[in-house]
Amino acid sequence: MSRNLEDLKGILPPIPTPFDRRGSFARDRLRDNFRVWNRHALAGFVVLGSNGEGVLLSSEERLDVLRAAREDIPETRWMIAGTGCPSTRETVELTRHAARIGADAALVLPPSYYRGRMTREALVRHYAAVGDASEIPVLIYNMPACTGIDLDAGTIAAVAAHPNVVGIKDSGGDVVKMGAIVGSLGSEFRVFAGSAGFLLPALAVGAVGGVLALANIAPAECLAIYDHFVNGRAVEAAELQRRMIPVNTAVTSRWGVAGLKAAMDILGWEGGPVRAPLVDLTPPEVEELASILELGGLEKEEEGGR
Amino acid sequence: MSRNLEDLKGILPPIPTPFDRRGSFARDRLRDNFRVWNRHALAGFVVLGSNGEGVLLSSEERLDVLRAAREDIPETRWMIAGTGCPSTRETVELTRHAARIGADAALVLPPSYYRGRMTREALVRHYAAVGDASEIPVLIYNMPACTGIDLDAGTIAAVAAHPNVVGIKDSGGDVVKMGAIVGSLGSEFRVFAGSAGFLLPALAVGAVGGVLALANIAPAECLAIYDHFVNGRAVEAAELQRRMIPVNTAVTSRWGVAGLKAAMDILGWEGGPVRAPLVDLTPPEVEELASILELGGLEKEEEGGR
Amino acid sequence: MSRNLEDLKGILPPIPTPFDRRGSFARDRLRDNFRVWNRHALAGFVVLGSNGEGVLLSSEERLDVLRAAREDIPETRWMIAGTGCPSTRETVELTRHAARIGADAALVLPPSYYRGRMTREALVRHYAAVGDASEIPVLIYNMPACTGIDLDAGTIAAVAAHPNVVGIKDSGGDVVKMGAIVGSLGSEFRVFAGSAGFLLPALAVGAVGGVLALANIAPAECLAIYDHFVNGRAVEAAELQRRMIPVNTAVTSRWGVAGLKAAMDILGWEGGPVRAPLVDLTPPEVEELASILELGGLEKEEEGGR
Amino acid sequence: MSRNLEDLKGILPPIPTPFDRRGSFARDRLRDNFRVWNRHALAGFVVLGSNGEGVLLSSEERLDVLRAAREDIPETRWMIAGTGCPSTRETVELTRHAARIGADAALVLPPSYYRGRMTREALVRHYAAVGDASEIPVLIYNMPACTGIDLDAGTIAAVAAHPNVVGIKDSGGDVVKMGAIVGSLGSEFRVFAGSAGFLLPALAVGAVGGVLALANIAPAECLAIYDHFVNGRAVEAAELQRRMIPVNTAVTSRWGVAGLKAAMDILGWEGGPVRAPLVDLTPPEVEELASILELGGLEKEEEGGR
Repeated sequence: MSRNLEDLKGILPPIPTPFDRRGSFARDRLRDNFRVWNRHALAGFVVLGSNGEGVLLSSEERLDVLRAAREDIPETRWMIAGTGCPSTRETVELTRHAARIGADAALVLPPSYYRGRMTREALVRHYAAVGDASEIPVLIYNMPACTGIDLDAGTIAAVAAHPNVVGIKDSGGDVVKMGAIVGSLGSEFRVFAGSAGFLLPALAVGAVGGVLALANIAPAECLAIYDHFVNGRAVEAAELQRRMIPVNTAVTSRWGVAGLKAAMDILGWEGGPVRAPLVDLTPPEVEELASILELGGLEKEEEGGR
Repeated sequence: MSRNLEDLKGILPPIPTPFDRRGSFARDRLRDNFRVWNRHALAGFVVLGSNGEGVLLSSEERLDVLRAAREDIPETRWMIAGTGCPSTRETVELTRHAARIGADAALVLPPSYYRGRMTREALVRHYAAVGDASEIPVLIYNMPACTGIDLDAGTIAAVAAHPNVVGIKDSGGDVVKMGAIVGSLGSEFRVFAGSAGFLLPALAVGAVGGVLALANIAPAECLAIYDHFVNGRAVEAAELQRRMIPVNTAVTSRWGVAGLKAAMDILGWEGGPVRAPLVDLTPPEVEELASILELGGLEKEEEGGR
Repeated sequence: MSRNLEDLKGILPPIPTPFDRRGSFARDRLRDNFRVWNRHALAGFVVLGSNGEGVLLSSEERLDVLRAAREDIPETRWMIAGTGCPSTRETVELTRHAARIGADAALVLPPSYYRGRMTREALVRHYAAVGDASEIPVLIYNMPACTGIDLDAGTIAAVAAHPNVVGIKDSGGDVVKMGAIVGSLGSEFRVFAGSAGFLLPALAVGAVGGVLALANIAPAECLAIYDHFVNGRAVEAAELQRRMIPVNTAVTSRWGVAGLKAAMDILGWEGGPVRAPLVDLTPPEVEELASILELGGLEKEEEGGR
Repeated sequence: MSRNLEDLKGILPPIPTPFDRRGSFARDRLRDNFRVWNRHALAGFVVLGSNGEGVLLSSEERLDVLRAAREDIPETRWMIAGTGCPSTRETVELTRHAARIGADAALVLPPSYYRGRMTREALVRHYAAVGDASEIPVLIYNMPACTGIDLDAGTIAAVAAHPNVVGIKDSGGDVVKMGAIVGSLGSEFRVFAGSAGFLLPALAVGAVGGVLALANIAPAECLAIYDHFVNGRAVEAAELQRRMIPVNTAVTSRWGVAGLKAAMDILGWEGGPVRAPLVDLTPPEVEELASILELGGLEKEEEGGR
């Protein structure tokens, strides 16, 4: 099913991949999480993004997670699969698999190991190869904190010239660049804030939504910032945005996936352990995190579903 | 006269220092510029900031420029003097001079030559020494592109604990940090966007205005973004913000002061040459700049005053 | 067979993986290259390093290349396998496979995708897990240009506390750090220069050799620098070192693997195409490269074996 | 007196400027230090470099320090004055003053406040203006840790095309670049290691000496590394080089001028306080520094002169 790209907007969490005690994908825990996420007006979900520990999974595990997610994500919502791999051919292959499993779009990191050689031309070729081969639309995933590559506006425009490259999740936090992209490519090119810390400022310059780690644990708050903005409630939007910054920092730049999973555990979701080389939070860190969540006003959801 | 800090908000250009052909301060050209600036609802002016080539002036020249500016700036508007110097003692001295000349506030760069040793403690001591000695309130000037120091939110909060440190001009562009500062220090701590590229997103998270190079040549547009935001016209604000990005880039990160002065010449202000080691734009660069200004919709102001 | 670590010294090329026209591993081309390399007094070879495009190969291809290399590398020389993968478990697995195939040591990159969380503790745990599981000794591979992580001396010392971590290939070029490592860990910890640009300075502070892309195409010259140094011919060593810098830059930081493979083609080895997202040199780039090689005094080896 | 540039080699300390308790230049303390330095075979001295806190002195103080140094430095040794200022005109002026006072050469930092605009052309013009105006030869001072500008080999070559630009003090630590510079400009262009951490590797690739903070407190050791190298004692040179690394780090990158001055106090020289915004070491830091000095084998010089 091909979706209407105009509907690609709003808030989407990049979901974590839960593991069991032996470190294997815990399919049931994922289902438990979806049961709660699906009660919120989330536009969709990103599977196998950075928070999904996609790069730490084997090829088989990736397909397992994608299949499980597709079962749990209602047809009415977007399922976006992270399919970026070090080589172009592997990226093409995983993107095709994801489409076959039912993903509605692919989120593709720039290959980054040989970053010194990832010229504009190399990146245009890479995304063109993926875009050509993919039955589903492709979103660029700019994630400088992980890739060491911060795609500039000119490169993004060059890559976006491909008809199947339809948008970007930008986690770099440079709102000037986001504004410049919307300014030059128009609003049909879908720009998403890549972190809740700058959701509101990104919306202010023309982003259409956010793919936000924070939306995993604070879907209501992230949706409220979006709604406040859309409905012209600038003061409320700003207040809530500011309140979310320390919480968001804790589960992103400070403690990363381990922080996000610990926060899920604290708030009643299924978080669980991370996979090595990532390291779980220590008990004192968990305690500090709990205070940050409390200060940010985040509470356990009530229902027993989790 | 001590001003009400609550009125410290809105749009302030950091004015360039005009030179004559021999490279000396051209006092009359500055007056010509003020004649036009003063027709706009600018909240005030920053004198001897980065765009004022303050670091390239001799001690005597700095005082000359401050005195001239004070003559031309109406009493009803803020005159903020850039007074940061490499040593604490020289900064104290210049700040006192500026106050005596009539500046309403001082904008103080972190000393940056020994940046590896500019620990939080060193910076707190420096700003405390300046704040103690200064009769006028002090604003922090975070300008990583020039100093190589990007003050973090914790350091800003520590420095801001001094009662005479009342705000910040942040040119770093990290709106998450700006939101965090407003969130932790409250709105009585005055946060200004340091560049027009992120004026609107900064306002969205709680900044009270902007100290903007662009406001020298596009005061009406900068004021309009501010007014659109304050009056809840999000769409108009975003559109104008995006339109200003390429223009702003040209006169800041791309071509700097030389670009700004060339743009002033093109648009009918008194720009003139920069001082070495800065280098004036080449004719082809001036031509490219003119197209960018035109694309951005900037036009010559009509009156002959300039 | 367990080798004597004291013999782990001298010059080792990190070999490229040749592909055929369809992009598959070209086993015969590799054999042709080894036929020539083996005529030189190289101490051994690194297989599946950055120049081997290891991260662009599938799991099966990696094993194919390791097996082929083991066949071609004489028992008297070191075969070191690049086995670093994004996850600890995959790294352990590939290291074990490599040992079974006959590698004499493993060269292990720090996992880098979640670099913000690769604390000293996380890295110590990762290398300890690999060191514990590996039957062959482990060398750290510090490659900041590709990983975005520049291991500091303290982290290297902490990782090296594991008895099975026996040395480092350091491509960062910080000879102060190399000297500090030799100073603190002693010469039984084997430090290798990771690039020919700083081979001589690294030797001067105590490195025992080099793992050098340049040694693929200029084995004689790299060996000569080493021999000049060992035999106290400082002037000759310096002269040859300086002559190799431009050549080395061309096949490393400037053009990377594509440059190295093009140089192999020019000089009569089997270079061939790179795998996407890497991009082959353009004809004008090849021409420029040829001049650089000529200026550096590199010539085709005479024999028809290639 | 014009000196023979071929004699510009060996070890030169960039001397600190001693202050008295009230923070003024302590002329007598400087004389005491020179009394000891002059007993060592140092080739000369750099006055008003980074370790001289030159940027923290007033214009008058700078001339006072230069005059005092000239009195204390024997005619047979080089006196090199740090004369880089933010503007070209001020740099020209200070260079001329230094020449009149008797400096034998000037060491000129690239102007760095507007670093984004310090293109190759801007730097070539700046150094040409200084070189044209200066009666004494000019050395480039590459000091990225303080200026945020790391001059590349191409820019250095372009600047060095001016006949009065005769060498460089390179504190960046990139020995590949140093080798490339010697390779392209020849040994008549005088390359000096800018820090003792990489003295030996720099010599190995063709540097002619070092301008070393460490030489202030360990002149004998720095001279010994140089002599060992010149006389082909590679093992002794390497051993001493490695032993000096932790000591050097303490008085440079870790604690800077404050560390150097504290070390001088510990070892019996006249160190004294630094000028704000620099901060003196705390007592626990002094204690740690003392242990590092002891571990490095540095001891008080015996004579009562200090």
